[in-house]
Amino acid sequence: MEKSEGKYSTIHYQKYLELEKILNAQSLRSAQLGQPAHEEMLFIVVHQVYELWFKQIIHELESVIVFFDDKEVIESSLGAACARLDRVEQILKLLVEQIGVMETMTPLDFLDFRNYLFPASGFQSFQFRAIECLLGLPNEQRLTYHGKRYSSVFPKEQQEQLDQIYSRGTMLEVVEEWLERTPFLKLDDFDFLKMYKGAVQQMLRQEEQAIQATEYLSDKEKEMRMKMVGSTDSYFQAILDKKTHDQLRAEGKKRLSYKATLAALFINLYRDEPILHLPFRFMTCLIDVDNQLTTWRYRHAQMVLRMIGNKIGTGGSSGHEYLAKTAQQHQIYADFHNISTLLIPRSALPELPKSMKEQLNFHFNTI
Amino acid sequence: MEKSEGKYSTIHYQKYLELEKILNAQSLRSAQLGQPAHEEMLFIVVHQVYELWFKQIIHELESVIVFFDDKEVIESSLGAACARLDRVEQILKLLVEQIGVMETMTPLDFLDFRNYLFPASGFQSFQFRAIECLLGLPNEQRLTYHGKRYSSVFPKEQQEQLDQIYSRGTMLEVVEEWLERTPFLKLDDFDFLKMYKGAVQQMLRQEEQAIQATEYLSDKEKEMRMKMVGSTDSYFQAILDKKTHDQLRAEGKKRLSYKATLAALFINLYRDEPILHLPFRFMTCLIDVDNQLTTWRYRHAQMVLRMIGNKIGTGGSSGHEYLAKTAQQHQIYADFHNISTLLIPRSALPELPKSMKEQLNFHFNTI
Amino acid sequence: MEKSEGKYSTIHYQKYLELEKILNAQSLRSAQLGQPAHEEMLFIVVHQVYELWFKQIIHELESVIVFFDDKEVIESSLGAACARLDRVEQILKLLVEQIGVMETMTPLDFLDFRNYLFPASGFQSFQFRAIECLLGLPNEQRLTYHGKRYSSVFPKEQQEQLDQIYSRGTMLEVVEEWLERTPFLKLDDFDFLKMYKGAVQQMLRQEEQAIQATEYLSDKEKEMRMKMVGSTDSYFQAILDKKTHDQLRAEGKKRLSYKATLAALFINLYRDEPILHLPFRFMTCLIDVDNQLTTWRYRHAQMVLRMIGNKIGTGGSSGHEYLAKTAQQHQIYADFHNISTLLIPRSALPELPKSMKEQLNFHFNTI
Amino acid sequence: MEKSEGKYSTIHYQKYLELEKILNAQSLRSAQLGQPAHEEMLFIVVHQVYELWFKQIIHELESVIVFFDDKEVIESSLGAACARLDRVEQILKLLVEQIGVMETMTPLDFLDFRNYLFPASGFQSFQFRAIECLLGLPNEQRLTYHGKRYSSVFPKEQQEQLDQIYSRGTMLEVVEEWLERTPFLKLDDFDFLKMYKGAVQQMLRQEEQAIQATEYLSDKEKEMRMKMVGSTDSYFQAILDKKTHDQLRAEGKKRLSYKATLAALFINLYRDEPILHLPFRFMTCLIDVDNQLTTWRYRHAQMVLRMIGNKIGTGGSSGHEYLAKTAQQHQIYADFHNISTLLIPRSALPELPKSMKEQLNFHFNTI
Repeated sequence: MEKSEGKYSTIHYQKYLELEKILNAQSLRSAQLGQPAHEEMLFIVVHQVYELWFKQIIHELESVIVFFDDKEVIESSLGAACARLDRVEQILKLLVEQIGVMETMTPLDFLDFRNYLFPASGFQSFQFRAIECLLGLPNEQRLTYHGKRYSSVFPKEQQEQLDQIYSRGTMLEVVEEWLERTPFLKLDDFDFLKMYKGAVQQMLRQEEQAIQATEYLSDKEKEMRMKMVGSTDSYFQAILDKKTHDQLRAEGKKRLSYKATLAALFINLYRDEPILHLPFRFMTCLIDVDNQLTTWRYRHAQMVLRMIGNKIGTGGSSGHEYLAKTAQQHQIYADFHNISTLLIPRSALPELPKSMKEQLNFHFNTI
Repeated sequence: MEKSEGKYSTIHYQKYLELEKILNAQSLRSAQLGQPAHEEMLFIVVHQVYELWFKQIIHELESVIVFFDDKEVIESSLGAACARLDRVEQILKLLVEQIGVMETMTPLDFLDFRNYLFPASGFQSFQFRAIECLLGLPNEQRLTYHGKRYSSVFPKEQQEQLDQIYSRGTMLEVVEEWLERTPFLKLDDFDFLKMYKGAVQQMLRQEEQAIQATEYLSDKEKEMRMKMVGSTDSYFQAILDKKTHDQLRAEGKKRLSYKATLAALFINLYRDEPILHLPFRFMTCLIDVDNQLTTWRYRHAQMVLRMIGNKIGTGGSSGHEYLAKTAQQHQIYADFHNISTLLIPRSALPELPKSMKEQLNFHFNTI
Repeated sequence: MEKSEGKYSTIHYQKYLELEKILNAQSLRSAQLGQPAHEEMLFIVVHQVYELWFKQIIHELESVIVFFDDKEVIESSLGAACARLDRVEQILKLLVEQIGVMETMTPLDFLDFRNYLFPASGFQSFQFRAIECLLGLPNEQRLTYHGKRYSSVFPKEQQEQLDQIYSRGTMLEVVEEWLERTPFLKLDDFDFLKMYKGAVQQMLRQEEQAIQATEYLSDKEKEMRMKMVGSTDSYFQAILDKKTHDQLRAEGKKRLSYKATLAALFINLYRDEPILHLPFRFMTCLIDVDNQLTTWRYRHAQMVLRMIGNKIGTGGSSGHEYLAKTAQQHQIYADFHNISTLLIPRSALPELPKSMKEQLNFHFNTI
Repeated sequence: MEKSEGKYSTIHYQKYLELEKILNAQSLRSAQLGQPAHEEMLFIVVHQVYELWFKQIIHELESVIVFFDDKEVIESSLGAACARLDRVEQILKLLVEQIGVMETMTPLDFLDFRNYLFPASGFQSFQFRAIECLLGLPNEQRLTYHGKRYSSVFPKEQQEQLDQIYSRGTMLEVVEEWLERTPFLKLDDFDFLKMYKGAVQQMLRQEEQAIQATEYLSDKEKEMRMKMVGSTDSYFQAILDKKTHDQLRAEGKKRLSYKATLAALFINLYRDEPILHLPFRFMTCLIDVDNQLTTWRYRHAQMVLRMIGNKIGTGGSSGHEYLAKTAQQHQIYADFHNISTLLIPRSALPELPKSMKEQLNFHFNTI
């Protein structure tokens, strides 16, 4: 089909996609070691498809991290960053759906070839670990697995590659630095934190007055609602206190620096300002990716439970429990999720000073 | 549009669907009590759609339970039962997808009207509780909520309706009874349990021999694998022991009776026999519904976390945590899931006696 | 559960959602006129859910159209417009999925109650027509239905409501006006059309040179590829000619004005400029909504074919064919789709003049 | 990681899945021939994933066809056949979803590398053609493509492989033969066709009486409804006439033989009989697969329209139109869809003779 092998040759679909390789990479262990098990093909194909998508996800994540290298021109790349994270989210959604295909294999079918796989295990997917690293899952937060470091199942070369991701800077780190560079928190006579704290206090006082003035509430109900306001108050004060924040961070309960957290809060509150639209969307994308990854972990755990019950996995792990725990513990952008706890209604939000508002708007806004 | 209001009148789409009622049931609290919040419409519609689907699910579940009333003709209804549970699963999938629509509302949007909702809460959905009851979630297994019985939020009449579901017989109960009636476990000279235990032992012995005979395994690896076989052995013995089973059941760790469990195991192992095809599919449907419900709980918890962070819910609950826990603890058909732990490969499965095999097949099998 | 019926009363879930109305609006015609058909409940619930979502879609579309009333501050609303159209797309996706639930009813099941429905038909959904009108489907483009105007099935009052949507201004119209107001097409010494035409010519000439210089191509292949370039050339020239455009528009083959089309092309080509990011995303949202609506029509037609074959629908229509045709012909934003035909590679795109580039960027871009 | 290369070696995930091959098969043409285009990776990965799934689909379809080789034991394999077609449907659903991932690439992104692909085209996917052949798409029904046979783009060896699929027997053919072997159509004193025709006549006469007796219908309405009944009558008579059927089949408008069609109708009508449950489910699976494939074609066409507008595809085709047409014309199991036109309500269905009913039931039905 090829006219020439030269650089500018025309190309055939089959060659372009290297289907020789792709479609000749399914060797059933069951066929080699015993009776060919019809369902092993599905098992292989499902995992190969996973790995292809993982490669794509890595391609996207790496490219987004690179955007943040250049401290000056970030704004113009933010649109592309969102588009690429959107794509990662779409892919992860597909991977969640794909579990349904895997589940068309029944536990009994799996038993036909499960023994041949020992000790291969999804735990040995290098690319999946690379994705976790790129997103910024810190080693300290990882569940240990049979008491060993997660990367111990990989050859030394791959272990080093994973380490390099951290030394280069993860998504979480570059985003944190970018947030810390946000110029809006203190500008001229504008002090965001002070303004925000004032707004919170005012909102809580109004709420208390409303409770006291509501005739139909019984005294007991009033007391309960007042208590709720009170605990909201302490909550805000604790969270907005730099010392408390730094303490929580030292304990590994928070990841984002105090300054980056405030910037993220600012962006969340004033997202309607045109210049903040993209930054807000970008943070939303990060949360979406994190959520989707968590959903995948969860559905994966559910599938493993169904497939092998409480038996230990092919890699010698108590698969279901490990996976179910990672769904809870390997969440990476919890700090962004938690911002929602600090939001206050638009009606309680103080107007930005006019000088600032002008700066936040497009140059073209008067057209 | 109507020609007559009489019994045989023709009917218009709008009237048939009672759209007068349906489309005039969205009153924004925000509009009544303050500023109309654009997003409150979504909040209302999403929940109304949930409730419509809940009604449909109840309609299906009740009809399936009725099938089991008649002890004789169950087989001919099993196909319909599967079709209806399939539908319930499809609906639950849709409800999971629907969470994505809800998530197009941001936490900041929600704050615009959240205060007006107090103390209304999804916890007060009567129909959702009815679904849990119909499926067979036992009261003992339920999480308490602020220390109160789950049904305390309902008027007395509704509480009684929920109780009646239990006294009438839940899905889990009627299925258990049906399984216990399975005639295959002991028939003529066939003793399923004995045969199965023998097969398990043989399978484990073969596995041990294979390990010992494998040259490339180090002694340490052999020892580890032998230990794995050993623990599988103890596991099977414990599970198949009636005393142990009854003990676990008394402790609430198992729900299905010993006899029903064996029947379910038999059906799972010999699903390829034509007469067992539908019973197997039916059990699979139950698991699918359970899984889908669990997924919905999980995604719901994830959404609540995103929407209100760790703040307490509109009903005064710590919403996210409660919901996340129900995803783990309110699983209803765990006993069916766990059957997969007891499966043995088809190759290790003993042939059924010929006399039995004939009885299990269609009368028409020679055509 | 209610403490008071007053304005500030607390509220119960059941009352807030008006479940009295919602859950008592399912009267089976089969039960009234003959034997209750189990599946009729599904039929009713599915359509009621459709109508609830239609109400939500109308709520969103109307709110977006209102944004465009104010000619000055559009930019700050564009983010919200995108979010709302995104939601509409999500809802439409759900409606497509929902067809799968409907398909759990088999044709035989449907026959049990189909006769009772005459002549009610989905064709009589007022809200669906309102959505088509709001998006801007012109009456001329509509398929006739048994030779009658689509709105003839509605009472006069509703017919007038549909007409009012057009007189108020549809989405397509307000977007067209907004595009025509785009200030970028001619600015100082910048003439977009001239620049773009030049770029197209240059790109095509380069392509021709590359073909001629490619050694491995046979003469016949070169000729074929040259011909392809030629027809691309004529295509661009025809499309970019105002006269041709106006002619096509007069014939109903195009909807957008020449000026609005150029603006849309400009935005598509220079989408990477920060200020154009949101306008581009907004146009993408319109295409997504249109696509999703078309997919729904298509799947709906497929479902009807399955359910009633070639028999005429309950409304006396040849349902499948009518629906399948609307999937092709009722596409509303075809003009936006077609922009992709006019795109040229980023590498062929001329740089914007520096003075313009500065104006297109954020005021804050140097921080 | 491997202990030995011998036959019984343990295996590592990476080696088992041959990730060396899989993950080193993405060479960007844009990088080889010009500037690396970020989005080309997605383009390659999406298509490789397609091909992996195609391989899996072929694996399943071939295995189902084999089941039908053995004329005697089909019943016991029907369950497995359904499970495998179910899986094919799930995979096709995933492929439809996957189009959404592809659509995260914009037309402008595609232009960055589109020129390098010439003349590679999805039209050159051998496996996709093999799937069409396996399902039974006849060559006569295929759209020609630039006037050439669809297989002319493949090397001779692959063309022969496609031909062999037909000579071996397609799914449609083996299913037709299986249907023709159905023993139920004439048995003892039971004549299905005669009984069915009688039931149809009775149903139509009752309908006519009901129309005449309905007081609220105007004469004009009565006339219209009587005409509808009349045309239904002619329709049934034409369809059930062997001569007419054979004529339509000769013209390529029907594919299934008269006898097979009657058998399919019988199974559809009496699906509630236990022995017919699986055959009915199997036919439903075939329709589901066909529908899902059609949906994929449709969404694919929609995506191509969006991506390249009316420009000709990379393979030199007018991509969108060709694809949109195949969505209509390449439907394979239309004859099974059309059965729904022949269904009559359960209430009009004649009881099977008792002797037959007994034979249709399980041997175990009295337990």
